[in-house]
Amino acid sequence: VLGVTSDEPDTPYLFVDTAVVEHNLRTMAGTARELGIALRPHAKTHKCPPLGLRQVELGAIGLTLATAGEAEVFADGGCLDIFLAYPIWAGGRRGGRLSALAERVRLRLGIDSAESAAVLARAVPGAEVLVEVDSGHHRSGVPAPDAGAVALAASRSGLRVVGTFTFPGHGYGPGNRDRAAADEADALAEADRVLHTAGFDVEVRSGGSTPTAALSARGTVTEMRPGSYVFNDAQQLETGSCGWADVALYAVSTVVSRRGQQVIVDAGNKILGADRPHWATGHGRLLDHPGARMTALSEHHATVLFPDGEQPPELGRCLRVVPNHVCTAVNLVDELLVGTSGTIHDRWPVAARGANT
Amino acid sequence: VLGVTSDEPDTPYLFVDTAVVEHNLRTMAGTARELGIALRPHAKTHKCPPLGLRQVELGAIGLTLATAGEAEVFADGGCLDIFLAYPIWAGGRRGGRLSALAERVRLRLGIDSAESAAVLARAVPGAEVLVEVDSGHHRSGVPAPDAGAVALAASRSGLRVVGTFTFPGHGYGPGNRDRAAADEADALAEADRVLHTAGFDVEVRSGGSTPTAALSARGTVTEMRPGSYVFNDAQQLETGSCGWADVALYAVSTVVSRRGQQVIVDAGNKILGADRPHWATGHGRLLDHPGARMTALSEHHATVLFPDGEQPPELGRCLRVVPNHVCTAVNLVDELLVGTSGTIHDRWPVAARGANT
Repeated sequence: VLGVTSDEPDTPYLFVDTAVVEHNLRTMAGTARELGIALRPHAKTHKCPPLGLRQVELGAIGLTLATAGEAEVFADGGCLDIFLAYPIWAGGRRGGRLSALAERVRLRLGIDSAESAAVLARAVPGAEVLVEVDSGHHRSGVPAPDAGAVALAASRSGLRVVGTFTFPGHGYGPGNRDRAAADEADALAEADRVLHTAGFDVEVRSGGSTPTAALSARGTVTEMRPGSYVFNDAQQLETGSCGWADVALYAVSTVVSRRGQQVIVDAGNKILGADRPHWATGHGRLLDHPGARMTALSEHHATVLFPDGEQPPELGRCLRVVPNHVCTAVNLVDELLVGTSGTIHDRWPVAARGANT
Repeated sequence: VLGVTSDEPDTPYLFVDTAVVEHNLRTMAGTARELGIALRPHAKTHKCPPLGLRQVELGAIGLTLATAGEAEVFADGGCLDIFLAYPIWAGGRRGGRLSALAERVRLRLGIDSAESAAVLARAVPGAEVLVEVDSGHHRSGVPAPDAGAVALAASRSGLRVVGTFTFPGHGYGPGNRDRAAADEADALAEADRVLHTAGFDVEVRSGGSTPTAALSARGTVTEMRPGSYVFNDAQQLETGSCGWADVALYAVSTVVSRRGQQVIVDAGNKILGADRPHWATGHGRLLDHPGARMTALSEHHATVLFPDGEQPPELGRCLRVVPNHVCTAVNLVDELLVGTSGTIHDRWPVAARGANT
């Protein structure tokens, strides 16, 4: 692992192992190819346009993003096919920004109401849209039976309805993947029937997340949008959707305090993020100490408890901490230090960091 | 509240009401004055050097920060008296950075071990240090009886021991303030006796947090370091240490999806942060809808449930969302939009955002 020499940057910092990233990109591209499902990765995870271009180079048909601001950054970076998988509200300045974007890239947008369709149609007449369907995560999206009404409203507003999409977010959590993947297939199939009855012949049924990607229903799902698989994280580890060798990003941190079996490292929630699903074992995991538990997290302190019988590391030692949720960790830094086997070769600017609007 | 016109920035963004900030600054300065306790606010909350200068103008003796990087930014901004209330590990490049800082500002540092004292003494010979004591939060810091041994080791390394400090972080949570303030006083008093016995005559006993500030023990506590009071947040509201009128910062967000009593707004954890103490009612609060609950939070979606009988706001309406923990919310944005009564007059760069090292 990393030592403590004056050549190394001060901790904490996020390090990305490019060999693991390349492996993860190829594996997911292979999964999509085998399933016969188009891959449109969610690039909010990495927020780095060059990595998005690499995803496309390896076979992705385009990228998914969440905000107009992210799309502007990725368009500047040369990514030319973008789906905003979000119930877009095109009011205010955002309308003009989306209109400008639609002139530069092939842009598709999410809607889940007649009202948002009408506002979008005024801003970007003729825009291509996908109707969001709720497959069980109960966030945005309409129940599948209501997809037809939204599609009709969109069509009457002058938008072009090209498909439906859903996010099976309830697939996170140990043991939830199979059910969420089945729910996704059911919801997209039902929405498709409803749209057919309403006179629509849509080409895209978009789903998928990192946990459910390999379970995506061939035939029903035509496109999938996993994001976290690029780097993976403690959530993916603990849901069983990746192994330790697939973790490509970690925070390098220093032991700054120590008492008994407990040490404090300097990677707090200002670099790891504070995401903690109720089923997680703690606030992240230690790459080299799978038995250790992260029992508390402040802004610049992570409390790590080592199991009885395992000697905790000494003061000043560097530890590699895997965040619970990599998308929000990456969003905290201006650049990622990258290399292989712990040696830093390069820095990647997190170009779309904070592009929330 | 705010409308939706093309003159306004796209949501979500963080807005700061400067009139409320000024009120909060004056109130805390008054509390410290009445108690006869020096005020050294923790500026990690706002990360804006001009606001730190205003705190000093109103009577603060200096500022508290957590990292060398934050101290560098505030020193550049003209703040000349800084305490790093953190168990500093001065290895690697950080040693040289601290040494350079000590030449520019009056710098005091935290230690909680003989080892960290020795490393610091090599980097910054003669540096002024405070020994960190654990008063019940069980993060960093030594138990009070061990403070003498750390002080002796520091002194033998050539450091100048000027006092002790503690963070009564267990004062967060409804009903915990009184006990935490009492624990703080007990720990600082005991550490002081121990240091006296070991031959030290220290001048500083530093404690305090926003919830415990007004309860700080006159005589025992000589200096307090509240941070969040500048802006306040949903945590402070729900622990009872501020009222609704004291909330100076909120995320302006738009309703993008709506079904029954539930709406989705576009302020997710990439602008609010994901902090959620177990006792919180949810992922934040709505300034204009105290009965609403934030039941879920994704990166760009906040799920808000309105109580039966309260009509949820329409699509496209702007809502003011108070984050659970303002320090981490501020750390997500490059600038704060500031003004009074919802009208934007200025932008403050969050100069020390991401200064984690």
